[in-house]
Amino acid sequence: MEVETRQRRIRIWVAYDGTNYHGWQIQDNGITIEEELNRALTELLGQEIRVIGASRTDAGVHALMNVAVFDTSGRIPAEKICYALNARLPEDIRILRSEEVPEDWHPRHCESRKTYEYRICRSEIQQPLRRLYTYHVYRELNLEAMTEAAHFLEGEHDFQSFCQAGSQAETTVRRIYQVVLEEQGEELVIRVTGNGFLYNMVRIIVGTLLEVGAGRLRPEDIPLILEKRDRGAAGPTAPAKGLTLVKYEFLTSGGNSLEP
Amino acid sequence: MEVETRQRRIRIWVAYDGTNYHGWQIQDNGITIEEELNRALTELLGQEIRVIGASRTDAGVHALMNVAVFDTSGRIPAEKICYALNARLPEDIRILRSEEVPEDWHPRHCESRKTYEYRICRSEIQQPLRRLYTYHVYRELNLEAMTEAAHFLEGEHDFQSFCQAGSQAETTVRRIYQVVLEEQGEELVIRVTGNGFLYNMVRIIVGTLLEVGAGRLRPEDIPLILEKRDRGAAGPTAPAKGLTLVKYEFLTSGGNSLEP
Repeated sequence: MEVETRQRRIRIWVAYDGTNYHGWQIQDNGITIEEELNRALTELLGQEIRVIGASRTDAGVHALMNVAVFDTSGRIPAEKICYALNARLPEDIRILRSEEVPEDWHPRHCESRKTYEYRICRSEIQQPLRRLYTYHVYRELNLEAMTEAAHFLEGEHDFQSFCQAGSQAETTVRRIYQVVLEEQGEELVIRVTGNGFLYNMVRIIVGTLLEVGAGRLRPEDIPLILEKRDRGAAGPTAPAKGLTLVKYEFLTSGGNSLEP
Repeated sequence: MEVETRQRRIRIWVAYDGTNYHGWQIQDNGITIEEELNRALTELLGQEIRVIGASRTDAGVHALMNVAVFDTSGRIPAEKICYALNARLPEDIRILRSEEVPEDWHPRHCESRKTYEYRICRSEIQQPLRRLYTYHVYRELNLEAMTEAAHFLEGEHDFQSFCQAGSQAETTVRRIYQVVLEEQGEELVIRVTGNGFLYNMVRIIVGTLLEVGAGRLRPEDIPLILEKRDRGAAGPTAPAKGLTLVKYEFLTSGGNSLEP
C-alpha cells in the first residue's frame, strides 16, 4: 500500500466514560480526555500530537460521540488509526472511527448540531448499576409541566441565564432545535439538540426543568428567566454524571455524522 | 412506637455493582459484599452481625436483586433498617427493602427461582459506558442456532459439564425453567431462570452458546455435552462482568419476591 507522507488532518470520533476524568480539556489538577488522546497519538505516530476537540465537556460528563482533529505527517492510513489508537487508550475511552478531512476543517468553526441526553433515575433507591450515569431524583415530578417548560426553550434565544459565570463565549445567543422528555423504565431522559451550548447550559436547563417538575417554577416562568439574562434567575446546575453527549452532526463540507 | 427487643430475623434485598468487589463471600484477598454488609449492620445495630446470603455471586458479578438474612435483637423497626443501612454503605451497594421473616426462614433452604441476565455488547467498538456490564463480542453470531441450543438446556438435567471444578454442591442436578435470547439495540441478552445454579454455571452456559453462535458447536451437541458430565466438554467460561442476578422469587412461606 502506498501512503503519502504529506501533512494530513485526521478526524476521530471519540466515546468515553467521563467518571474518571477531569473533563476534556487539559488541567493541572487531574487527568483529562484530551491529555490521554495526545499521549496515545504521540506514542503511536512518533511525533508530538495535539488534538483540537469539538466539545470540551466538563468533569464527569460522558460522550457516546465527541469529535477531535489533529494534523500528522505519520504514514498510518487514516482509517487504521482508530484501531491502533484503541490499543493504546484505557478502556473508558474508545475511538469509533478515524478519517481524513480537508486540512482547513475545524470542528468548532463549522455549523453543527449536537444532542445531549440527561438521565434521571426515578426509583426510590438509586440503582447501583446506573449510579455513574444518572442523577437520582426520587420525588413527584410533573412531567406535563416540564414538557411545557421545555418548549419555551426551543428556538433562538439569548441563553445568558443558562450560562455559568466564567464562560468566555463571545455571544450567549444559541438555537435549540428540540427539547424532548422521554420515560425509559425508571429513567427520565431529557434530550436537548442545539447548534451550540454555553458553559453548563444543559445542566442548568435540567436543573430548571426539575424546579418546574417540583412545582417551584411554572412553565411560563421560562420566558421571564430568558429575558432576565441572569444566571441567578434559572434553577440549580444538575450534576455532571447524568449528562452524555450522544450525537454530533456537521452541516458543512467535510461534515457528516457518524451513525451512533 | 413500641418495639420489642426479642431476637428477630430480618431479610434484606440487595442490589450491587460487582465491579469493585471480590464477590459476595468473605475472602482474604479483597473486599466483598458480605463483608460490607456485616460491617454496616454491626455499626448500625451495635452488635456483631453476620448475614447469610442467598446467592454467593462471584467476583465482578452484579445483582439487581440478591437476598440475605440476619438475626438481631436491635430495636430499629425492620422496614427502617433499609434506609439506615444505605447511609452506611458505599453507593455501589444499595438495600432495596428490609423486612422481618419467620425466625427459621433460610434463603438457601427453601424453594426459589432465580433469574440471571448475561449481556453481550455486539458493536464493532466496545461502548465505554457499558464496558463494566457487558462482554464485548464482535463477530457473526448465529442467533437462531444459539436459541435452538438454549432450548436443549431447559428442564431438569445433570449440569456437571456446566460446573466449574471446585464446587462443593451435593448434587449437580438442577432445573432450568427458561433460557431466552433477546436483542436490545446493540446488546444481546441471554436470560436464564432456574431453581438453582452451580459454580460458574451461567457463565459456562453463555460460553457454550457463544461457541454454537460461532459455528464451532451445533445445537444438537448440547444433549451430548450434558450426557458427558465433564466440564471439558462444554465451552469456555464467559467473563464475570457481563453477568447480573436480576430476580429472586421464593416459593415457600416467608417467601415472595420483590418487584424489580
